[in-house]
Amino acid sequence: MKVSRWCIIVLRIDHRPERDKRLTTHLGLTARAFGAQGFWITGLRDPNITKSLQQVCSQWGYRAFSVQYKESWRKCIQGWKNKDGEVVHLTMYGLHVDDIIPKIRSSSRDKLVVVGGPKVPSELFTLADYNVAIGHQPHSEVAALAIFLDRLYQGSSLRITPHDAELTIEPTPHGKRARERNT
Amino acid sequence: MKVSRWCIIVLRIDHRPERDKRLTTHLGLTARAFGAQGFWITGLRDPNITKSLQQVCSQWGYRAFSVQYKESWRKCIQGWKNKDGEVVHLTMYGLHVDDIIPKIRSSSRDKLVVVGGPKVPSELFTLADYNVAIGHQPHSEVAALAIFLDRLYQGSSLRITPHDAELTIEPTPHGKRARERNT
Repeated sequence: MKVSRWCIIVLRIDHRPERDKRLTTHLGLTARAFGAQGFWITGLRDPNITKSLQQVCSQWGYRAFSVQYKESWRKCIQGWKNKDGEVVHLTMYGLHVDDIIPKIRSSSRDKLVVVGGPKVPSELFTLADYNVAIGHQPHSEVAALAIFLDRLYQGSSLRITPHDAELTIEPTPHGKRARERNT
Repeated sequence: MKVSRWCIIVLRIDHRPERDKRLTTHLGLTARAFGAQGFWITGLRDPNITKSLQQVCSQWGYRAFSVQYKESWRKCIQGWKNKDGEVVHLTMYGLHVDDIIPKIRSSSRDKLVVVGGPKVPSELFTLADYNVAIGHQPHSEVAALAIFLDRLYQGSSLRITPHDAELTIEPTPHGKRARERNT
């Protein structure tokens, strides 16, 4: 599922099923809807998340969207770099997204977008090629991911309808209209 | 705390403390960071959310950011309309944000931005002045709110440093630097 010039994978580190279940699901959904091709998770395994994301892909399309559990975020990053990809870490401490995004966008290298929780290992800040701040205020990794991908694609990913969708929306000013494929 | 030409309040309907605790907190943080002046919540009361948001405001500024529990979302909407404000409901079934945002931005009316969960009452679709879709794929109310406010302010809210912040970030390419006020 490479709909863009890059392969983009979102890596969520240190998932804790009890605390993070819905946030991690929302991260995966945001990754999919905003144009990433896959979602990797480290931390404790949580089959409910894979299941929720696969259900969405089966109804709304992008079935090739890949959800994988990984043992080690360091190995993910090292492997990515060994294949000449670049690593973008989203953090309020980094450089402002609008100052750095033209450089990231102009590179043809595939991108691993890393989002963490409150306790991000300091090593990640040095391993990442770019530490990118979606503003310098605390908010949400879900908001940060959405804005980063939206800026990267200059808004275009929000216009795409997956070719393999069973259900699509008919936009309407007041109400709900969804259409099943072939109806 | 009116930093913009509008007063913008985000209304989260039907909060369920067990299930939504962190998502609702992230919504409140996103509302604050992206330029809303307050956050209203209906559903079950959850003092942890108010406490978390107030802690952030006390460290990072915008102390006038208002967090309030409300009994009825209908009354919130009716009250808002009675004061000539307009109501924007974020939903994947609405009109695409990029088709409708110029109209919303050009109006000087204050804005109540309503975000719900999966079971939004159908009445809300008719009561809202605008049903706005942040793309027509399922993702996250946190992502939707961030993109909506970012589009409304044309990216400018992510550049603001609150004047009453105790802590501010010094952006840096690799590492973490925060500065306390008067140091």
